[in-house]
Amino acid sequence: MSLDVGVLADLLDGEYADLRRRVREYLVEHAGFLNEVESLSKDEYRDRVRDLVLEAASTGLTASGFPAEYGGLDDFGGNVAAFETIALGDLSVLVKFGVQFGLFGGAIHQLGTKPHHDAWLRDIAEARLLGSFAMTETGHGSNVQALGTTATYDPETQEFVIHTPDDQARKDYIGNAARHAQAAAVFAQLIVGSENHGVHAFFVPLRVSSGSTSEGSTSDPGALLPGIRIEDCGTKLGLNGVDNGRIWFDQVRVPRTNLLNRYGDVSEDGVYSSPIENPDRRFFTMLGTLVQGRVCVGGGGIAASKVALTIATRYADKRRQFGLKDEPETVLLDYGQHQRRLIPLIARTYALHFAQERLAHDFNEVFSAGDSVSERRRRALESRAAATKALATWHATSTIQECREACGGAGYLSINRFAALKADTDVFTTFEGDNTILLQLVGKGRLTDLRDEFGAFDYRDMALYVGQQAVEKVIEKAYMRQLIERVKDAATGGQSDPGGDLMDHGYQLAMFRWREEHITAGVARRLKGGIDKGGDPAEVFSRCQHHLLAAASAHAERIVLEAFLTNVSGMPDSAEKDALSDLLSLHALAELERDRAWWMEHGRLSTERAKSVTRAVDGLCRSLRPLAVDFVDAFAVPDELLPSI
Amino acid sequence: MSLDVGVLADLLDGEYADLRRRVREYLVEHAGFLNEVESLSKDEYRDRVRDLVLEAASTGLTASGFPAEYGGLDDFGGNVAAFETIALGDLSVLVKFGVQFGLFGGAIHQLGTKPHHDAWLRDIAEARLLGSFAMTETGHGSNVQALGTTATYDPETQEFVIHTPDDQARKDYIGNAARHAQAAAVFAQLIVGSENHGVHAFFVPLRVSSGSTSEGSTSDPGALLPGIRIEDCGTKLGLNGVDNGRIWFDQVRVPRTNLLNRYGDVSEDGVYSSPIENPDRRFFTMLGTLVQGRVCVGGGGIAASKVALTIATRYADKRRQFGLKDEPETVLLDYGQHQRRLIPLIARTYALHFAQERLAHDFNEVFSAGDSVSERRRRALESRAAATKALATWHATSTIQECREACGGAGYLSINRFAALKADTDVFTTFEGDNTILLQLVGKGRLTDLRDEFGAFDYRDMALYVGQQAVEKVIEKAYMRQLIERVKDAATGGQSDPGGDLMDHGYQLAMFRWREEHITAGVARRLKGGIDKGGDPAEVFSRCQHHLLAAASAHAERIVLEAFLTNVSGMPDSAEKDALSDLLSLHALAELERDRAWWMEHGRLSTERAKSVTRAVDGLCRSLRPLAVDFVDAFAVPDELLPSI
Repeated sequence: MSLDVGVLADLLDGEYADLRRRVREYLVEHAGFLNEVESLSKDEYRDRVRDLVLEAASTGLTASGFPAEYGGLDDFGGNVAAFETIALGDLSVLVKFGVQFGLFGGAIHQLGTKPHHDAWLRDIAEARLLGSFAMTETGHGSNVQALGTTATYDPETQEFVIHTPDDQARKDYIGNAARHAQAAAVFAQLIVGSENHGVHAFFVPLRVSSGSTSEGSTSDPGALLPGIRIEDCGTKLGLNGVDNGRIWFDQVRVPRTNLLNRYGDVSEDGVYSSPIENPDRRFFTMLGTLVQGRVCVGGGGIAASKVALTIATRYADKRRQFGLKDEPETVLLDYGQHQRRLIPLIARTYALHFAQERLAHDFNEVFSAGDSVSERRRRALESRAAATKALATWHATSTIQECREACGGAGYLSINRFAALKADTDVFTTFEGDNTILLQLVGKGRLTDLRDEFGAFDYRDMALYVGQQAVEKVIEKAYMRQLIERVKDAATGGQSDPGGDLMDHGYQLAMFRWREEHITAGVARRLKGGIDKGGDPAEVFSRCQHHLLAAASAHAERIVLEAFLTNVSGMPDSAEKDALSDLLSLHALAELERDRAWWMEHGRLSTERAKSVTRAVDGLCRSLRPLAVDFVDAFAVPDELLPSI
Repeated sequence: MSLDVGVLADLLDGEYADLRRRVREYLVEHAGFLNEVESLSKDEYRDRVRDLVLEAASTGLTASGFPAEYGGLDDFGGNVAAFETIALGDLSVLVKFGVQFGLFGGAIHQLGTKPHHDAWLRDIAEARLLGSFAMTETGHGSNVQALGTTATYDPETQEFVIHTPDDQARKDYIGNAARHAQAAAVFAQLIVGSENHGVHAFFVPLRVSSGSTSEGSTSDPGALLPGIRIEDCGTKLGLNGVDNGRIWFDQVRVPRTNLLNRYGDVSEDGVYSSPIENPDRRFFTMLGTLVQGRVCVGGGGIAASKVALTIATRYADKRRQFGLKDEPETVLLDYGQHQRRLIPLIARTYALHFAQERLAHDFNEVFSAGDSVSERRRRALESRAAATKALATWHATSTIQECREACGGAGYLSINRFAALKADTDVFTTFEGDNTILLQLVGKGRLTDLRDEFGAFDYRDMALYVGQQAVEKVIEKAYMRQLIERVKDAATGGQSDPGGDLMDHGYQLAMFRWREEHITAGVARRLKGGIDKGGDPAEVFSRCQHHLLAAASAHAERIVLEAFLTNVSGMPDSAEKDALSDLLSLHALAELERDRAWWMEHGRLSTERAKSVTRAVDGLCRSLRPLAVDFVDAFAVPDELLPSI
């Protein structure tokens, strides 16, 4: 039994197949770098990483998302695809790439206006102007609204004075800052007169640029500009090819026009104006334009998982250990437990891949449409980005760990790649939005959606809501309706398992939906009840937080499953479709198994059916085992990037 | 609300408090080393680690387990306590220490006889003779019985010829080998004439020793001896202060007397003899004497978890982020989710600590008793060591990960210790016995116990067995009996929740016991049924493996809970006892919550009670939150070893 790996690989590569192929060629050309890294000093490593980013820029792989007039392709989706594919190689290169083109370039692009684009975007796209994204501070990472750095307008000189009031307000963990950045997009509280207009971004030069001959200055190119202090963050758990630093600003003056003024401006005479009246809405709109980083990081996590699974699955298919007397030892992947360890992770990686594709697609649509997009649509994109990023990066952490362990001692040697994969991806779960905070955002968004629709929370309303809501076109509607009727009965008339065929994707999706809707309604009631009873809001929130995060996870799991299902449903009938259909079932049933307690507690799964879910997962692991290597081969990680274990 | 941290710390330090204090002093003296590491080259790091091991040896901290006549204290328990405490510092030092005194020294001590002890033990204890433990090969890690290295007896010269037949049989990942070891305990198939007597250990010199003036040799001290080839394993995911290497033997000759001959010997004229007739039994007996490594590694994992939790909990108690408008931001540990992330891990660390104490106690007893100990008792120790090691090291991996994430970007900086903790402990889950293989061993042992007791597997027998088995004296027996009656009813008369007070430790333990007994009986029936039906044994085993591992985990969880309970029950009435009693409940209920699906599926937990378990976990996290810092302070990690975040 085997599959046409090319068919699967094409499906996974999707619409950006050609771009992905070019990135793979670039990676193969530099494959040796993966093993060189260990022998480089910190500075050598950082400089080599910079050089690789410069080279990528020279081949035109880096600027897809920029406007065509500055050397780009006006193609946001291409940028994500390139990022995801670069993630098959050294991840310091990836993150340096992301800082330069995504974060720094993205801030200028999204928060700046035409004069800023004219001044800097082409140089950024072509990596002649290297920059940092100086948002996070020592004292504030997640809570960006409370940043301490100030940018005070001085109408006398028509300048902003950027200042770090105390060490908690120093910029921290800033990529590119310790060594290479010539400038930074600096986030600071914009103060005019005595009024604080909230966090805005400013273009702030950091170092003497090689081309500049600043008046009277004899500074070397690369020397820090006056008032700028930068300290190296030192060695990190991973990503040591990226030069993270801390920045202090001591009354640093920049021209008024260095305010990236798409969402807020200050006139020469010191009058603040903004197209968005409400300061909170303005802040979240500005942040929302920076969602690209979050979209990309999730994709990077999925790519890293693919690398790890490719190594571990191929190894498991040839490594032998133990067995019956007088017979060849057994191949690891023929052990039930080894199948249990790896194959559901392969299934989940496929699911997340398609969820990521859907996210990248939405991202491309929303950002290509510019200001015409509704706020609701933008909010939906941000929620999807947050949900996908959290699931994808936690998946990367656990998958790489499982794969490392599944390769035993060999997995512990740096040459076999898990060391770097594990260390470099580790921070993915907490940068570009801490995963817990992101899921909280998703959960709060779901509550807002509910309120918009009903104005109040009522359990019976929820059952109705489940019944009414638009069902994905890929699901056979009649069957779905029948299922939903049954769950409505169950919800109103006590506890009873609605039944259904475990292998039926309609059943699987219905189960995910029910969970999502019921947990969300439940936490809404708890929050509302707590507040209605006069509880301290912070205390009520703290008590419900775990529940709220469960609601967010349930939502995230549902959209991931839907994305996988949409893609499988769209395939022409074939052995590959059948195989992916089984892989989809494995993904869905593994999640049903993991959280089966919840469905039992809520009358959606009888104890007997819960046991049959476990049996079904066992059975699918066994039946898909012969296809496991095909499934990972379809990830198309170039052999040159893989170790020879 | 606060506790007397000293009382808790004394309880945790236990009988080896004085030794632990001395080790802490040694660690504090060298605390600077933790941050020096990053600036050292690979060779410098390795040499510094060796020097620290030598220094520890000179202070007498390392030889507790050796016989008094060779400079030790005949105290196996002291050796474990010293190891666990060293694990609060740099883990390369720990592992180097373990290789030298535990593995290499342990092999000579346990597998050798008086002439070997006389020749080498004092030099090993005082670290004048550095050595390796050369068991694992590239082709065989877990399956030691299938090693490829041969030791063929040559009666002409009365020598053994140690040989590596192919690259799969090279010794691999061998600590101390790449740079420092002067000799190794080498495991090889002992061949006399044409007969293979199975794996035995040999003392094999590797390098020219500094003291030696071997006839005619002009080799430098440290040069490899003829026939020995050693290659560096290169950079590893962690533990880079340990010089792991690969060793090939090309017809290396050692005197006949270098066979470590406690369990098997070859006479001058080539006659093999052993006190243990059965080759399998002999092999497992030999392996069993090496259980110390396994005992120690689990303790190391627990210590590393303590360091991580101390850092993350203290940080969470002062770091603020978000909050209500116009109020100070909220301390992280006041968030319900943050409590959920950290406090159950603290509880589980306490539980594992006491389980480890119990294991070390048993280990000391069994090994102090020498050959008078029954095979059954030894087997029980090995099972306990395997169970505790697997749970403790997986706990370390997940705890350190959670703590890193809970510290956000600060957690990613090497200076804050998570980088090294994470990387260095990673291999704990797969070395000294791969955790999956260890649990399999535990599971098989449980099946053997059952067979010994019943001769057959019957579900009704099992309920009887539950009723009959000796109940820990610490549990109030009347209550327990009542519970057990109820579960017997449930087992025979269908499904019904036996009820009980969630916070009652008797109830908690009864639930753990039921799960253990029922899963074990279930997998026994499946295995027996599969074989009885004529199934292919390998296939039957593969299908039941996941189930068998669940049985092993259930057993491991039960003995961990019992150990915690035994210790708490033994405390005098006090605020500290009450606090630990709650912490015990949190540990037990968190596990009940995690696996509540199983208890529901088996009629031991109604869906309503399952929900109340979740509420109880929430409640305990909240009520224990004010004590969280006290709990971690009692781990007594010296401040000098902690970062200042």
